[in-house]
Amino acid sequence: MKFDLESIFDRLWPLNRSLTGNGNRETLKILSELIPLKISEVPCGTKCFDWTIPPEWNVKEAWIKDSSGNKIVDFCKNNLCLLGYSEPIHKKMHIEELRNHIYTLPDQPEAIPYRTSYYQKRWGFCMSYRQYSSLSSNEEYEIYIDASYNQGGSMTVAEAEIKGGSDKTIYITSYICHPSMANNELSGPLVMCRLYHLIKDNIPNPRYTYKFLFMPETIGSIWYLSTHRDEIIDKCISGIVVTCIGDDAPFTLKKSRIGNGILEKSIEYLLRTTCDSYKLYDFFPMGSDERQYCSPGFNLPFCSLTRSMYGEYSEYHTSLDNKSFISFDAMERAAKLLMKAMQIVEYNNVYINLFPYCELQLGKRGLYPTLSAPDARTAIVNAFMWILNYSDGNHDLMWISDKSEINFFTIKEAVTILLNHKILAIYEKA
Amino acid sequence: MKFDLESIFDRLWPLNRSLTGNGNRETLKILSELIPLKISEVPCGTKCFDWTIPPEWNVKEAWIKDSSGNKIVDFCKNNLCLLGYSEPIHKKMHIEELRNHIYTLPDQPEAIPYRTSYYQKRWGFCMSYRQYSSLSSNEEYEIYIDASYNQGGSMTVAEAEIKGGSDKTIYITSYICHPSMANNELSGPLVMCRLYHLIKDNIPNPRYTYKFLFMPETIGSIWYLSTHRDEIIDKCISGIVVTCIGDDAPFTLKKSRIGNGILEKSIEYLLRTTCDSYKLYDFFPMGSDERQYCSPGFNLPFCSLTRSMYGEYSEYHTSLDNKSFISFDAMERAAKLLMKAMQIVEYNNVYINLFPYCELQLGKRGLYPTLSAPDARTAIVNAFMWILNYSDGNHDLMWISDKSEINFFTIKEAVTILLNHKILAIYEKA
Amino acid sequence: MKFDLESIFDRLWPLNRSLTGNGNRETLKILSELIPLKISEVPCGTKCFDWTIPPEWNVKEAWIKDSSGNKIVDFCKNNLCLLGYSEPIHKKMHIEELRNHIYTLPDQPEAIPYRTSYYQKRWGFCMSYRQYSSLSSNEEYEIYIDASYNQGGSMTVAEAEIKGGSDKTIYITSYICHPSMANNELSGPLVMCRLYHLIKDNIPNPRYTYKFLFMPETIGSIWYLSTHRDEIIDKCISGIVVTCIGDDAPFTLKKSRIGNGILEKSIEYLLRTTCDSYKLYDFFPMGSDERQYCSPGFNLPFCSLTRSMYGEYSEYHTSLDNKSFISFDAMERAAKLLMKAMQIVEYNNVYINLFPYCELQLGKRGLYPTLSAPDARTAIVNAFMWILNYSDGNHDLMWISDKSEINFFTIKEAVTILLNHKILAIYEKA
Repeated sequence: MKFDLESIFDRLWPLNRSLTGNGNRETLKILSELIPLKISEVPCGTKCFDWTIPPEWNVKEAWIKDSSGNKIVDFCKNNLCLLGYSEPIHKKMHIEELRNHIYTLPDQPEAIPYRTSYYQKRWGFCMSYRQYSSLSSNEEYEIYIDASYNQGGSMTVAEAEIKGGSDKTIYITSYICHPSMANNELSGPLVMCRLYHLIKDNIPNPRYTYKFLFMPETIGSIWYLSTHRDEIIDKCISGIVVTCIGDDAPFTLKKSRIGNGILEKSIEYLLRTTCDSYKLYDFFPMGSDERQYCSPGFNLPFCSLTRSMYGEYSEYHTSLDNKSFISFDAMERAAKLLMKAMQIVEYNNVYINLFPYCELQLGKRGLYPTLSAPDARTAIVNAFMWILNYSDGNHDLMWISDKSEINFFTIKEAVTILLNHKILAIYEKA
Repeated sequence: MKFDLESIFDRLWPLNRSLTGNGNRETLKILSELIPLKISEVPCGTKCFDWTIPPEWNVKEAWIKDSSGNKIVDFCKNNLCLLGYSEPIHKKMHIEELRNHIYTLPDQPEAIPYRTSYYQKRWGFCMSYRQYSSLSSNEEYEIYIDASYNQGGSMTVAEAEIKGGSDKTIYITSYICHPSMANNELSGPLVMCRLYHLIKDNIPNPRYTYKFLFMPETIGSIWYLSTHRDEIIDKCISGIVVTCIGDDAPFTLKKSRIGNGILEKSIEYLLRTTCDSYKLYDFFPMGSDERQYCSPGFNLPFCSLTRSMYGEYSEYHTSLDNKSFISFDAMERAAKLLMKAMQIVEYNNVYINLFPYCELQLGKRGLYPTLSAPDARTAIVNAFMWILNYSDGNHDLMWISDKSEINFFTIKEAVTILLNHKILAIYEKA
Repeated sequence: MKFDLESIFDRLWPLNRSLTGNGNRETLKILSELIPLKISEVPCGTKCFDWTIPPEWNVKEAWIKDSSGNKIVDFCKNNLCLLGYSEPIHKKMHIEELRNHIYTLPDQPEAIPYRTSYYQKRWGFCMSYRQYSSLSSNEEYEIYIDASYNQGGSMTVAEAEIKGGSDKTIYITSYICHPSMANNELSGPLVMCRLYHLIKDNIPNPRYTYKFLFMPETIGSIWYLSTHRDEIIDKCISGIVVTCIGDDAPFTLKKSRIGNGILEKSIEYLLRTTCDSYKLYDFFPMGSDERQYCSPGFNLPFCSLTRSMYGEYSEYHTSLDNKSFISFDAMERAAKLLMKAMQIVEYNNVYINLFPYCELQLGKRGLYPTLSAPDARTAIVNAFMWILNYSDGNHDLMWISDKSEINFFTIKEAVTILLNHKILAIYEKA
């Protein structure tokens, strides 16, 4: 299924996503049109390790009116205007009192910042510094926030699965808790949905199972890990947090804490061999949900792929992280790169040359040129020689591809031919 | 014995070497004037792992005559003109038919290429592209190849040996299967013959045995390994393929697959410490006979030393790889470098300082200056201090030389003095 | 106790230090005003491994008089004028005979060289090449050296100790055997005395014991090791030779032979993170007393810290290594750097995060900002996150500081807070 990323983006954009609430529910419902999502509700108050699911937060309206009754700020027009998880209020107040509840970015005067106060009760508004500067210094404003906290509500989460031959699993996750911003975060869930279909279309009978998780950041992954602790430790082959992947900047791969997951190695291989430039970071314990998957008790091989990474672009967590910042074409390419990485994970194996003493006479099998000449050996003939020499139970195909500088997929093609000639066999550890 | 490399070269040059045949026999006979060769004949049809010794190929004459009866190509004048292992033919044919059997190098119009078709029956001629371009487009040519395949013939191989105290063996090999070309291949066998005498003259009572193997490339080494499999696995300390070592370009050391042979380490040490520039390659499964010795079932520490390496110089496998491309002086220096590497292999040991607690008072033994002064310590005094500090059973002399930046042979000289003073002893592994 | 380095320096300067003698005794007596020194006398003739304490050497006067009776060289004015350990003599001799006993530095015509002949009986004078050149070529000189060798004398050594909770010990040593030179050697003992007080003042209840050793170079450390062999092997956590540390050049850290002592790692960390430039040398078996501590039988983690290192500055071992070459302020800073390194050694530990599954909710403990904002996390909050993620029993604080690029002392402060919150515990190896 090839769907139009842009039209989905446009429908998701205005929804008020947060840790909980109807915006999240609506978001997952729209995404479930694209991939078969299993949506669940986790009751507020549920304990997850050191944390508790907070009450469900919903907002009907929120605004500031000036003394003439004009709405100078309106949540219904831009949900970034409201401090996330604001408590309700209705009050007139002088500008001086109001100023304590307004968040701006003096260095970026046109941008409305994104702010939240999930676990400490506050109310507040965010606005551009330009607007803030224009507020009359001697005026009374009417403040209205029609928000509710519902202890009886729930946190909405979802997952999709592609079943593989084994229940060893590759986890792909992003989050659905940010209101109207594009790179962070709508790009993540959208690229995941494309990836789902690219895997379906390009990896016919997958060896591994693929799980796609859509949850609010931090509390969502902590809940998931608290309820799937033994399962994920048992089944996880590799995992990835896909976020900030909407623009056309070079990729940034943040490695897992353990640093040697097969998925991160595959992505790094693709970046190294197919991208002009990219960034590679060792794990650091800030960022997104990899903080939880890579906490020392789990230490799972969860990496993260971004383009313009959180904190490294000036539009981050502001109203400038909008549709004009991102590229749907670049998102499609990101999904394809991830799909190719999954193919490498699927196809990478260690083999054994069944005739390890000297070279086989490949020529009599039609696998080697019978007439000597410069450049008589094609890439696939070179691939035969590399594979046969290094298939000794110690080197996987990615190693051979790396060392030989022959494309992984050419190596894979050569392996198939050698397997058909019964020269090579899968290596089974003793 | 110091023989004149050039006069030997001149006698070897015109012989038609191939996998088998009288050219090979004659070549080894001439080389046996230089070193005591044991020459053997391996019957055609002999099975060697996946391969079979092909029938013996000999050529009496081969030419192309134009319609006026002029020989425009003549094997007797330049044996590169004939496709190696061509089948016999005598036929008149139109230029258009003949073109399918002519090999040229359009990018190097003056060069005659070297081509073979050992295991697939073909006939053909090689010529310069310049000559090829001048062939009249409407003419009939007479083709004559008086070649024979003899199933009852044999492949000719030879070896020489310098007996050492131990039957642990250093293998030195090159090949004798290329017709009139200089760097690849006459340089290899000639440097080996010089090396034989340099070892005889400079390593009086060698610790190791040295075996010099002269065989056709690929099929020769495969035959050798198939008939000496257990022996070579048991005895091989290190090995080297000496080829393309005729010109004055910087050395290229291609490491073995296992990468840590004592001979390649010694050569690398000499290149690093005595050469302005050199190239160092990790093993790759193309090239010469190291492909067989380093096949995964053997995985022997066989490196390869070249100057302008196969495939990396434009004259390679053409008529331009001739006497003017090489330097007899450079070959002499190559043989000396190899001899020095063998000395390092011979002398390198791990020792034990018999007085490991604090320094010995070297001054009272006459081994240290008794008057303090700048530069009072000579290189050999420094060598004493390095050797005594690091002779703990874990560091060999090459390591000490590398770390101290003191010449290996100075280290060796200092060791002899310390042994005489009974301060040092050979380390015997527990 | 903050004492005036310069006034101590001025009192120590004129004393005639050597392997033995009253100059050494007087030196240690002055130092014992600064720190509580335990001074010992080791009888001459005592055997220490391969060495013997030489007879005690004392000089009353030594001079050269010209034929007019003018003292042209006088030991009482500059003790460098006399070859160290010179034998007594009183004789008139022609300039030609005298020349064999005069040491100069032709390349540094203003400098008087420092020379000794400890274990071979000689007599001699050192003078500037300028003075040497001016000696009249046809004159008789009177030579007088009133020196004595006393077999019944002794070698004077001293140590100070700061007792720690454990008898595991950090050794700090320098030597007291050079006459009037400043960088090499007075800087070493002076910096050690300052360091003693800085440790006292800044490490209230030290975990480790600190031993400060003052002995003549080589024979002193060999004697110490011969009499404390099992003790030092048992107790030594790390050691350092502090020498040539008087000027304001960048630091040079010479690593120990084993290379991984906690003290050298701490110093290297401080150099890397706080110094614009510094030099780092692997161990080499020349230099100072580290040669003994790092001899293969001991192989103790003794590093050495210098500024302008022996042999690397032109004033070394000459009369130009004087008060104008050094800086008392730079010596104070060197002592502080060493004290900070000792703090790191004391505070560095491996911890265990007691809540390893996912992150703790630091916000509810007041350890994390409750309002999201750029730069809301301070350095100490980041330190919490790094410490909690990597405190798994495998990473010490220095590793965490290095990887996170957060100052070690900020890390230490964050650890204290986390310990108070009972989130973290010291890791006890199973």
